[in-house]
Amino acid sequence: MTAGSSNASPQAFAFRVLSRDGAARRGLVSTPRGEIRTPAFMPVGTAATVKAMFPQDVRATGADIVLGNVYHLMLRPGAERVAALGGLHDFMNWPHPILTDSGGFQVMSLAKLRKLDEQGVAFQSHIDGSRHLLTPERSMEIQRLLDSDIHMQLDECVRLPCTEQEAERAMRLSLRWAERSRKAFGDQTGKAIFGIVQGGETPALRVESARALAAMDFHGLAIGGLAVGEPQEVMLAMLETVMPHLPESKPRYLMGVGTPDDIVQSVARGVDMFDCVMPTRAGRHGLAYTRFGRVNLRNARHAGDPAPLDAESPCESARIYSRAYLHHLMKAGEILGMMLLTEINVAYYQQLMAGLRGAIEAGRLADFIGATKEGWARGEGARS
Amino acid sequence: MTAGSSNASPQAFAFRVLSRDGAARRGLVSTPRGEIRTPAFMPVGTAATVKAMFPQDVRATGADIVLGNVYHLMLRPGAERVAALGGLHDFMNWPHPILTDSGGFQVMSLAKLRKLDEQGVAFQSHIDGSRHLLTPERSMEIQRLLDSDIHMQLDECVRLPCTEQEAERAMRLSLRWAERSRKAFGDQTGKAIFGIVQGGETPALRVESARALAAMDFHGLAIGGLAVGEPQEVMLAMLETVMPHLPESKPRYLMGVGTPDDIVQSVARGVDMFDCVMPTRAGRHGLAYTRFGRVNLRNARHAGDPAPLDAESPCESARIYSRAYLHHLMKAGEILGMMLLTEINVAYYQQLMAGLRGAIEAGRLADFIGATKEGWARGEGARS
Repeated sequence: MTAGSSNASPQAFAFRVLSRDGAARRGLVSTPRGEIRTPAFMPVGTAATVKAMFPQDVRATGADIVLGNVYHLMLRPGAERVAALGGLHDFMNWPHPILTDSGGFQVMSLAKLRKLDEQGVAFQSHIDGSRHLLTPERSMEIQRLLDSDIHMQLDECVRLPCTEQEAERAMRLSLRWAERSRKAFGDQTGKAIFGIVQGGETPALRVESARALAAMDFHGLAIGGLAVGEPQEVMLAMLETVMPHLPESKPRYLMGVGTPDDIVQSVARGVDMFDCVMPTRAGRHGLAYTRFGRVNLRNARHAGDPAPLDAESPCESARIYSRAYLHHLMKAGEILGMMLLTEINVAYYQQLMAGLRGAIEAGRLADFIGATKEGWARGEGARS
Repeated sequence: MTAGSSNASPQAFAFRVLSRDGAARRGLVSTPRGEIRTPAFMPVGTAATVKAMFPQDVRATGADIVLGNVYHLMLRPGAERVAALGGLHDFMNWPHPILTDSGGFQVMSLAKLRKLDEQGVAFQSHIDGSRHLLTPERSMEIQRLLDSDIHMQLDECVRLPCTEQEAERAMRLSLRWAERSRKAFGDQTGKAIFGIVQGGETPALRVESARALAAMDFHGLAIGGLAVGEPQEVMLAMLETVMPHLPESKPRYLMGVGTPDDIVQSVARGVDMFDCVMPTRAGRHGLAYTRFGRVNLRNARHAGDPAPLDAESPCESARIYSRAYLHHLMKAGEILGMMLLTEINVAYYQQLMAGLRGAIEAGRLADFIGATKEGWARGEGARS
């Protein structure tokens, strides 16, 4: 069967575009473990947990899929152990779709004494110093052991800014690893593998990467190596460069992105899937994302404020707890503060995605984006 | 109205003994905010949160009442602030009964540069060094500002072992503070104030304290200054000494106790109410309380174990997560591990209390205690 085929059985992986508004698409990814409504935001469940959230509460925010990190899971508890325990879904009590990254990005950012060559990356665990080798074939094996629904090819992601030579070298290596990853993935009914576009900030490299990957039999294409420190306009320019070269029939995933505004802008340019630690990490540090913009609950001005973060939010925690209480919990270092703000943020991200999906269906995306940005700009005063 | 009167209106505080089995009592405390089934265990919500639990999940475990700590709350966010925000119930989204301690115990264990005299305790905050004075009158004022349902007199709790002279001095000071606390409490419809028996390990002092407090118009009596380092048999001997001198018609609260076995033994001796940080604190450190005894999830032998903590627990988290997953979460320092084990432990404590209540009603307390201790002794092997 050809990857991305749309007239597939319920047990197959499939993607359909349901409606469009300009470059934006409203779609549906089907997997044996459930459907993913796109544009979709995937909360990050690094070490087999979306930090500080019960899995049923992640689901209740409207998340259709979460992301797991191969780098973390291969080191602890180990892919073979997860497999022996029935796979990642059973392990973490998340029966819905899971996408796993390839491990490459975090090997480069977290591991010690790493050495990259044509074969793969040798590195030492940041946890216990143990030695590991991550190759395209081993990454595929790990993702198969974890039993995730969407696998990612192993790639090399360079930090921006970098020289064009460096971006080109990494892009070409990533293409060779794409072929090896695709081959190692083989044919797994109901599962998908996505290729990853690289090429730094150089349009010609990005186009070459996108075209080469589009010609391979991937089920979806990701754009990697963005949101790694460059200004938003650089990221959006790269998206506009790449998009025309990605197949219309396959989902497009912008890795590691981003702020609510990054997401809105990228959806308008045709991106279908996102993941980011921002809502969860920010929540643990006292920052809330709301319809009225970002709110720092650690700020003393909230200490006596009886108002909730958003009295009209579909998320109960955003409605029933006062800013004063959230401020108190964060100042006192209470775990409940992290729990509540993580939930509130993940719920806001899902609320934003639902709004984007509805707006695309209604052909009113520009209006929706305008109103959304107006809400952020108006700020918290809007709540009174 | 006389304190502890049982033919009271729905808006009054009242206590009824519903049935007995030996010295043990099954009772009901009525307050305008709800009923407390006794014997009752109160989860500790130190800083306006039962650590790492959503309040609705605390409720779902079967808790009728939680405890708040005056010392922590007076320092942060401050009693006047909580009052301005509608009181502690609204602040923490717990509409059910709350008992507050007097602050005395934690002033002595946590505050810096404390100085105790007849008037009260002057001390510096352990958080910011600010200076405070806690007197019986100020403790009552703080508890009224917090709007808790059961207030505790200010007392002086000495650590055991101590000299008899020291125990006597502290006991007599606590009696004088009991009178001042009772007077300052005044007459608050629907609210209660409990006196606290002190007297160290000296039976004559304990009896004198109990008799003096029984003669005052308190709504309940607590036994303080136990579970502060002494062996269990000393604690139980003190209980047996004190109990005959406490009014039958008033609830009896053993402060800061304890392990499941401490609770079982104390219920058999006539105690109606308990509080302890043990289930919550242990949960944050990877220890689970179960029908099969205490389980240290950090232990490597759980790393590959697919079994849940208790497949027949009424607590879903004890049923659906494997020991391997809980082990992984604790090893990885994941907040979800603390959330799950805290919930599992609080649920087990409530399950134990429900079992004790049912056994007293059925006149089968001795059998229940025997079977319960057998389960703990049999250990985890029992699950297979």
